Order: sequence, then C-alpha cells, then structure tokens
Amino acid sequence: MATDYEFQGWLGKGPESVDGKMEWGAFEPKKWTENDVDIQISHCGICGTDLHVLRSGWSPTPYPCCVGHEIVGRAVRVGHNVKDIKVGDRVGVGAQARSCLQSDCPECTAGLENYCSRENTNTYGSIYPNGEGKSYGGYADYNRTNGHFVFKIPDGIPSEFAAPMLCGGATVFSPLRNNGCGPGKSVGIVGVGGLGHFGVLFAKALGADKVVGISRRESKRDDVLALGADDYIATEDDKDWDTKNARSLDLIVSTVSHSQMPLNSYLRLLKVGGSLVQVGAPDGGELPKVNAFTLIPNRIKIGGSWIGSPNDIEAMLELVAKQNVKPWIQTRSLKDANQAVLDMVAGKARFRYVLINEKYA
Amino acid sequence: MATDYEFQGWLGKGPESVDGKMEWGAFEPKKWTENDVDIQISHCGICGTDLHVLRSGWSPTPYPCCVGHEIVGRAVRVGHNVKDIKVGDRVGVGAQARSCLQSDCPECTAGLENYCSRENTNTYGSIYPNGEGKSYGGYADYNRTNGHFVFKIPDGIPSEFAAPMLCGGATVFSPLRNNGCGPGKSVGIVGVGGLGHFGVLFAKALGADKVVGISRRESKRDDVLALGADDYIATEDDKDWDTKNARSLDLIVSTVSHSQMPLNSYLRLLKVGGSLVQVGAPDGGELPKVNAFTLIPNRIKIGGSWIGSPNDIEAMLELVAKQNVKPWIQTRSLKDANQAVLDMVAGKARFRYVLINEKYA
Repeated sequence: MATDYEFQGWLGKGPESVDGKMEWGAFEPKKWTENDVDIQISHCGICGTDLHVLRSGWSPTPYPCCVGHEIVGRAVRVGHNVKDIKVGDRVGVGAQARSCLQSDCPECTAGLENYCSRENTNTYGSIYPNGEGKSYGGYADYNRTNGHFVFKIPDGIPSEFAAPMLCGGATVFSPLRNNGCGPGKSVGIVGVGGLGHFGVLFAKALGADKVVGISRRESKRDDVLALGADDYIATEDDKDWDTKNARSLDLIVSTVSHSQMPLNSYLRLLKVGGSLVQVGAPDGGELPKVNAFTLIPNRIKIGGSWIGSPNDIEAMLELVAKQNVKPWIQTRSLKDANQAVLDMVAGKARFRYVLINEKYA
Repeated sequence: MATDYEFQGWLGKGPESVDGKMEWGAFEPKKWTENDVDIQISHCGICGTDLHVLRSGWSPTPYPCCVGHEIVGRAVRVGHNVKDIKVGDRVGVGAQARSCLQSDCPECTAGLENYCSRENTNTYGSIYPNGEGKSYGGYADYNRTNGHFVFKIPDGIPSEFAAPMLCGGATVFSPLRNNGCGPGKSVGIVGVGGLGHFGVLFAKALGADKVVGISRRESKRDDVLALGADDYIATEDDKDWDTKNARSLDLIVSTVSHSQMPLNSYLRLLKVGGSLVQVGAPDGGELPKVNAFTLIPNRIKIGGSWIGSPNDIEAMLELVAKQNVKPWIQTRSLKDANQAVLDMVAGKARFRYVLINEKYA
C-alpha cells in the first residue's frame, strides 16, 4: 500500500531549538512493517520531557528530532499484524513506541513492557535497532508507531483530554493503580502541576477516601481543592506541616524533581506500611539522603515508577471514560508550537498544553 | 499473691559492661499490674542490640541495665487480665514489652503494636510511663512483661531454638511474611549471620521457589547452602555479581548495617516491582545514597522493617513448629554471660548464642 501523505513536523536541530527555534520540515519515519500503525495527528500534549530532549538535557539527542509523545489522531494505515485497530479509528500514542515483545521476555510477558530490558524505544528521539531508522514524535502531521503501543481512544473522551493523559496522566495513574489507591485509602500527591493535577483527579476517580495535594505555596490551595482534593498542604507556608500530618497517608506519589525537596518530611506523612513513589527525577537522579531510622521504625518504603504500561494506559482510559474525568488543559495551535514551548518553559501551563493540528482536528 | 522469688540478673552499670564487666545482682522489676506475667527464665538469646545498649551505642542507657530480649521460661505468676496464659506454661518474650494497646490507636488496633507511636517500651532499658519503673531483660532469673507481649511456645520447639527467634527471628520473619515471600517468589537475604540465617530458613519454610544468600566472602558458601539456600552470591569474591544476577529477585531482606554497603548493587538484583527491606541500621542510620534512576526505571522500592508484631511472632512460631525449622545456635551457660558477650562482640557466634539458665532449664 502506497501512502499519499508526507511526514512533516516541528524539528529540533540542536539544543537551541528549545528557545523557540524548532523548524517545520519533512522527516523520514521508521521503516514500515506490518506491525505498525500510521496516525494522522490531530492533537499532541506538551510534556516536560519534550523540553529536556530538545535541549539534550538528559543525554545527547539525535537531531533532527520531532518531540511530542501525547499523540491523538486517526489511524490511516494499519499493518496486517495489528489486531484491534482499523483505519479510521481514533487512537493515541504515549511515551513508548516499542519493546522487545518476545515470548521469553519476563517483562513483556508480564504486562510490564515499559520496563523491558531488551528494547525500550521512545516515541521520539530513539534509534530503532536493525537499521529501521529513528522515532519521531507528535508535533507533526503524521506518526508511525508499533500497533502494540497504539491505543483506541474511547468515545466520550475529547481528544484534547486524552492526549496529555497518554504520557503525563499514565505516569501518575500507574503508581496509583499499582499501589492500591482506592476505597479506604488516603493518598497524597506531591507537586500539583502537569503530572500532579492528574494525580489528584485519578486518585479521586479510583475512589480513594481522602486525597491530599501537597505543594509549596498556599496560593495554590483553591485550585487544588477545585480539582477535587480533600485537603491541601503548603510545605513552605504551613508551619510544622510534617508533624501535624504525620502518619496520615497510605500512599504518596511525588511528581517533584528538585534535588533539595524535603523528602524525609514527605516520608513522615506516611502511615505504617505506606509507600512514597517518585515519578519525578532530579537532574542526575540525585535524591536527598534517606535515613534508615526514617524507614525502619515506620515500616515505610520509597520507590519509583516509570511511565505507564499499555495495560495501565487502557485501564486509565476506561476509568476516564466511565468517570468522565476532566483534566485542566489549555489548547494551543500546532502552528504556534515554538511559542507554546517557550510558555511551557516559563511555567505558564495550567496545567497542561495541548497542541491542536487544525488541519486534521 | 506474694512472690517467693527474687529478680536477679547480669547488670550493666556503665558502657564498659560490654567488655565482660556485667555484674550479677538484684533489680527491682516494673510495678506489678494484673496485665503482667512473671517468667522464670530458662533461656535467653544474645542479640546484637544487647551489645549496643550495654555500651550506650545508640542512646544513653539508663544503667543499671539487664539486657536480653530473646527470653524463654515458665510463667510463674499471671495477672487476672491476661488471657491465654496459665501459670506453668512455657512462654517467651521478644524485644517489645508494651505498647499503648488503646482502642483508638491506629497501630495497636491494626496488629502493628511494634509501630505504636504512643508507647513503645522495650523489654529492657526502657523507663515505663507513670512511674511504673524500668524494664529489665533476660540475662536473669526472672522477667516481668505485659501479657500481650508474652507468647506461648508451641510444643515441639526446643527452648534453645525458640529463644533467638523471639527478636532475631521475628525481625526477619516479619518483612518476609509481609512482603509476599512464598511460592513463586525468589528471595535474597543479604548478610548471613544471626539475623540473616533466620532469613534463609524462614524464606524456605514459607515456600519461596528460590532463596539466595548474599554475603561478602566465598568462604561462607557451604554454610549458606547447608542452611537450605538454593544459591549464594559472594559480593567481594564474585566478579560482576550484580550484572550477572540483575533482575533475579522479587524480594531482598537486608540484615547488614555497614554504611558503605553496596546498596545500589543490591537493588540491581530486584525484578521489576521488587522491594528491598532493610532491617539492619548503620550507626546514625546513614544509608548509601539511592539514585532516582535506580528506582524509577525498575519500579523498585527500598524500605525498612522493625522487629515483629505479636501476630508476626505467633505466625512465626506456628510455622517453625509445623515445618520443624532448626536454627543454628550455640548454647552457653548464663553463668558465663560476660564471656559469651565478648565472643559475640568478636563475631564468633555461628550463628546465635543462647544462654542457658541451668537452675531453671
């Protein structure tokens, strides 16, 4: 089957691209296989990772790079081996484009494709093994991704809501889902921004008894309560916040990534047997030191979680459709992607920008 | 009821007592209440904590102090409020003498008495609230402890086996039991000494598919396999041990307490979703730094666990009786407690010393 469309998008050609200097142009997608799906993109969320990769902040980026891994659009070509997706379906792609998917892989066979140790190809900025080319993301007209990592978007979820959930939402949904968030539980979300606001929404949707937003400033309280949180803690404005709220939470998901965050104070908020799961990573991964006498006499744990598995994403979309979860997003035109990136860097998003590709929306 | 026995034991009167200078003498037990049990002591294990407390290693010890919290003997006086224990029963006491036990305590009502935030009176070296006196341990003829923390020893468990389980055993049993050790699981035990050897025994008894002993030197391999471990890793003698064994274990219980332990390498051994639970605490609690990029891309956790709850101890004793678990212990005479302490300090125990009080054994 020949394609009558061209892959074009916003290309970062060097670290300065994050300063509003992405350039629109054509790119060569990965080599087509019958496991792939081509998507005509209508929406793409802007994720913090996009900024890091544009500026080569974590590791050298293989420029040119088209970022964006919160993609929604229509399937326009579907490989013969792809089940469950038809041409014309409204579909989405998150942060992962492929894992090994082999029958002897402990992770892939356990629904933990996002932790596959053999292949973890990102939706953009990765080089496929075996000369299949590079991966390009969603600030673009078209995307090509392995069908296992392409998800049908349930009717009833607007595309601009679905898009930012595919990475940002799933990254927070996964540790909530996999650490027992639900009825009877008290859950804290540290950092109420792009990721954290999903945490508040999803913890409520999962039925937690009590959801507490935790951020630095009192000025954010009204927004966080309006999102549905039952309580709010302002760590720089509340006095003795960790003592007053000690042993009050079963689970904390921390989206912050300052290496100076008050981690030991967050840990004091956990009930006996509770866990804090870190999804934000400081530069270099440096976390504050944790003392054994914080962990041992409280039987608490600190851990991490990395994006969402395909199964997590499907469960999230199902919950969102059922509970009518509404993220707080702002739409921007794909044409204005450079300005939207600059505004994202400036911290202006409340709480997530979604680019609209008017041609196909 | 008057008592016709006197409380006497080995008393540490200062930090030098750990150097073989405990002195035999009388002490005043806590004030009797009808919630208490008096025990005529036949056996008492020697725990590493005894050495720390004798030398005021963690905090100032309220001398005189009689250490020992792995006590077995006969109940000779039982308060009216104590259920399930009769005079004459063979009973044991572990590291905890009392918690608040109030009906509104989140921990005590949840079977987590060992994490009670209101009262956590140790079996020795603690001052009871409300002027009830001090707690004295088991290097002695008699002990007085709250009946909720006195356990019947099932027939079939020799007293010299039961004693060291009441603190050392329970401290390792609790995190195994509460983190899913059982069929289908691969479990690592770091440090195969007094605590760790119980870890190997209990992980096998709980039905783990694979139990791996992890210690520094190859020379320990035969002992660890003889204990029942399926495999052994010598972290100072095996090359690339962490790479070769990466993602092989569901759960690790770490009994080591060196602040320089290769913690990040231990964490590499965990499968996706696995946990490492620290029961050993370095001086000051300083653990090596853990990087977010160790935790996040592997969805692993590090936590801690503190002694065992009464329910843990009962479950442990039941398992030991059913499976006929045999710890590796060496018996010493209570008369020679000073020499036994010196030998314990010198690291000669294989793997646990148990003092025998021949008068009552």
